[in-house]
Amino acid sequence: MKIVVLVGGVGGARFLLGVKTALGMPAIGEPESPSPHEVTALVNTGDDVWMHGLRICPDLDTCMYTLGGGIDTERGWGHAGETWVVKEELAAYGAEPTWFGLGDKDIATHLIRSRMLRAGYPLSAVTEALCDRWRPGVRLLPMSDDRVETHVVIDDPEQPEQQKAIHFQEWWVRYRADRPAHSIVSVGADEAKPGPGVLEALGEADLVLFAPSNPVVSVGTTLGVPGVREALRKSKAKVVGISPIIGGKALRGMADACLTAIGVETSAEAVGRHYGARSDGGVLDGWLVAEEDHDVTVPGVDVRAVPLLMSDVDATAAMVRAAFDVAGVSGV
Amino acid sequence: MKIVVLVGGVGGARFLLGVKTALGMPAIGEPESPSPHEVTALVNTGDDVWMHGLRICPDLDTCMYTLGGGIDTERGWGHAGETWVVKEELAAYGAEPTWFGLGDKDIATHLIRSRMLRAGYPLSAVTEALCDRWRPGVRLLPMSDDRVETHVVIDDPEQPEQQKAIHFQEWWVRYRADRPAHSIVSVGADEAKPGPGVLEALGEADLVLFAPSNPVVSVGTTLGVPGVREALRKSKAKVVGISPIIGGKALRGMADACLTAIGVETSAEAVGRHYGARSDGGVLDGWLVAEEDHDVTVPGVDVRAVPLLMSDVDATAAMVRAAFDVAGVSGV
Repeated sequence: MKIVVLVGGVGGARFLLGVKTALGMPAIGEPESPSPHEVTALVNTGDDVWMHGLRICPDLDTCMYTLGGGIDTERGWGHAGETWVVKEELAAYGAEPTWFGLGDKDIATHLIRSRMLRAGYPLSAVTEALCDRWRPGVRLLPMSDDRVETHVVIDDPEQPEQQKAIHFQEWWVRYRADRPAHSIVSVGADEAKPGPGVLEALGEADLVLFAPSNPVVSVGTTLGVPGVREALRKSKAKVVGISPIIGGKALRGMADACLTAIGVETSAEAVGRHYGARSDGGVLDGWLVAEEDHDVTVPGVDVRAVPLLMSDVDATAAMVRAAFDVAGVSGV
Repeated sequence: MKIVVLVGGVGGARFLLGVKTALGMPAIGEPESPSPHEVTALVNTGDDVWMHGLRICPDLDTCMYTLGGGIDTERGWGHAGETWVVKEELAAYGAEPTWFGLGDKDIATHLIRSRMLRAGYPLSAVTEALCDRWRPGVRLLPMSDDRVETHVVIDDPEQPEQQKAIHFQEWWVRYRADRPAHSIVSVGADEAKPGPGVLEALGEADLVLFAPSNPVVSVGTTLGVPGVREALRKSKAKVVGISPIIGGKALRGMADACLTAIGVETSAEAVGRHYGARSDGGVLDGWLVAEEDHDVTVPGVDVRAVPLLMSDVDATAAMVRAAFDVAGVSGV
């Protein structure tokens, strides 16, 4: 079976562990013998940013480290055993920004990536090279090789009555999403092309899943790359989403701030309707919600209520199997 | 008094501590009250190299850290309390080169420098910005803002009977200078211009000193920048060199390999004659040699034998005062 999963960072990476487990693959690393199944993750790159001359791809790296066994499992992002010497030294120089958690091990990844990008390699080729070491057991495809950046429009703290756009990372990490977002803009998306393999993967998929990642700035950003929605609509595969909202609360913090910014209520129903039915110009065939959201309806979409917490890999794998059920895929 | 010192890395940095001390300035950092004296170091940049996408300037950094109080005093280069996390992680990726001692704290310096260089700032402006933090108490001027790189021609280990040119750092650090050098080439020197302030400093100097740095790849490289020799010849200041060779041995390891490559004997006399008398088309007025080299003669040059070991700052300051004597400068 060929499965394509649209993912963001921490939640998406954990979901992928469950996908692999549900397919009988080891959660971490590659199977010892070739698997009959193939998992391709379409990873959001809208959070990517240049800082201190380094190209940082938070979602790609979180997926790569998590699936390759290098993640800090407590924190959910960054390296196990990470240190922060370079960051402290940059701060001693007064080099901005100082609010981003740039770990020493992480910097090695960024150095290799930045050097390859400057040498002319596209992000997809860079990602493949980095995965040569991490061996995530999943094909990690950047949603696009082009520069697409999520910016957030907030009140300008220095100029009353004025608004300004800041990079998503600044809003998310520096301000912890506590400055109201007037809008969220995907800069460069209009001209972006899907990364190599993205449309092909969607065309060949037996099943497409949306991880319970942020529906606005993770899955939503990938859906905003021209050609992706159309490929989803044309795909022979069923498309099943997993709600990141449980009982009106975001599974992971701050997704509600993003939903509010685009005028969508923070509820499993509203997000399901925001994605919409494939039969009705949307992108979903199935929508998994938590048991407490059992009364959710999305016209044209098969909604199922199941336990949704990704408390461990087995619980996540059970969610994935529920998605298999909804899609009616068998042979797994 | 305005003193200009031609320096390389470790030896040059230690010599500058002595110059400051001899002038009544604190060896480390800036004087509390303005000093009547001004020290300008013309720093070799021929060792500079791009590695992992970072611009590394070993001699500038060694001077900056040493004079700013951040050096590892045991090792002589790199930061006190340095860690090596990024380097190990780069090696885990298999990223070449792995033989260069790229410390974590050091990387912060390189990140800031590389970012500024890519943004279009010349190395001299970058150095000034970095010194804003370190406050070395000496004006550190790169010999040139242009790319001048010292390459070493060796036998190609993979192709018998063939020679190849490698970057000085590879020869020095990776091979510990143990591969015979057929020649040493200063790539780009012909087209290089002296850095901003270099010719002016030489023009205004009351005294010019050559630190006991490598006469080929440190002082020699700076002398090879077009315009520097001419400015030295025209200068109203006396030029006094300090021999890096004592009793036929290099004060610091491996200078003999460089001298051999350019056909100069490893002796205080040969190096003094290599520099040559200013009255005779060379660059020296005075030449300080060690006491055991008291019989050295260099035609047209005032040779003095004094204790030359830079065992501590006071011993170094005494050497500097001996150079003042040779030059006949007073009022210090």
